[in-house]
Amino acid sequence: MCTAAAGALNHATAAMLDQRVRLAERVIAGDEAIDVLRARVEEVATDALLFHSPVAGDLRTVVSAIRASSDIERMGDLALHVAQVVCMRHPQPALPPEVRDDFTRMGALAVQLALKAAEVVRSRNVLLAVELDADDDAMDVLHRHMFTVLMDPSWPHGVPVAVDVTLLARYYERFADHAVVVANQTVYAVTGEEPDAIPI
Amino acid sequence: MCTAAAGALNHATAAMLDQRVRLAERVIAGDEAIDVLRARVEEVATDALLFHSPVAGDLRTVVSAIRASSDIERMGDLALHVAQVVCMRHPQPALPPEVRDDFTRMGALAVQLALKAAEVVRSRNVLLAVELDADDDAMDVLHRHMFTVLMDPSWPHGVPVAVDVTLLARYYERFADHAVVVANQTVYAVTGEEPDAIPI
Repeated sequence: MCTAAAGALNHATAAMLDQRVRLAERVIAGDEAIDVLRARVEEVATDALLFHSPVAGDLRTVVSAIRASSDIERMGDLALHVAQVVCMRHPQPALPPEVRDDFTRMGALAVQLALKAAEVVRSRNVLLAVELDADDDAMDVLHRHMFTVLMDPSWPHGVPVAVDVTLLARYYERFADHAVVVANQTVYAVTGEEPDAIPI
Repeated sequence: MCTAAAGALNHATAAMLDQRVRLAERVIAGDEAIDVLRARVEEVATDALLFHSPVAGDLRTVVSAIRASSDIERMGDLALHVAQVVCMRHPQPALPPEVRDDFTRMGALAVQLALKAAEVVRSRNVLLAVELDADDDAMDVLHRHMFTVLMDPSWPHGVPVAVDVTLLARYYERFADHAVVVANQTVYAVTGEEPDAIPI
């Protein structure tokens, strides 16, 4: 699921940067597959609870899977929202040139966070989960910088473009937040502790 | 939790409409109590899985509680975000006069949705859950109308205020969405069906 969400946002970002409306449409059509995966995770998790009565770490793993699947489904929705803005603005570009570089970076960072979260889920490597916090801090810096750009009195694009940029920036920031939550839920499953409580 | 989230957004909205910064600060301080409730729900749910090995509807109820608690925690976060904007803009009002009425309505609707979701959770009344969809449609209409106001070439307040209004409107719309999800999870717990699959 995490890899699928990363792929969706990667494509949505490419579609946004290069006005590739077909690619955006593919992201929109592909979202249902992630929703189906979420339902499947819940089914498997419920069956595991029913037939295996897991305890301790196994029980935490199942509970974490249920919670993480909601977060990753939401990551897919956010990629979908980016793609929808691309389609709505087509054939106009969704982004003005001033913020292209920032969004290129936010896109790369968000995709990287999702792939790292996938790796944490796969490897149950608790130390790797710590890296996600640093990446998320970098995302917050980019997100805040976007507001500095928007609030500048010399912003030349008016309100409608500013509204789009505000929402798009928020989609990337939320996507990154959810990736961190997914990694943290794995940490909780492995250790029984919230990440903040683990001395590293 | 739902009632607490409703109360938080009710206070945050009042703080926003009347620049009551103390009230906004209380909302911010109060968010932790909702986070603590979320952790408590997960603890009780995990204990229930461990000691009672629930099956069928009971198992669905426990799984739904785990998922719903994440959604309601998020509703609390969104009320917190509204309160944070109030504090950041103080002593300036966060909202220009043109959109006060719309936000008054969005606030009332969002709080009503959260209280109805609480009632669905409490009563397990599946029919009441259907009402939330109609309320959420009304919220979407208000949310879309906000963009019409912002996109109007005669918008007199410039980009910074438009950015605030964009984000604030999104917080209310997301809060309402989460309330609907909470009610739908209860429907799933009671019936074993997603709400869309139930003929009413």
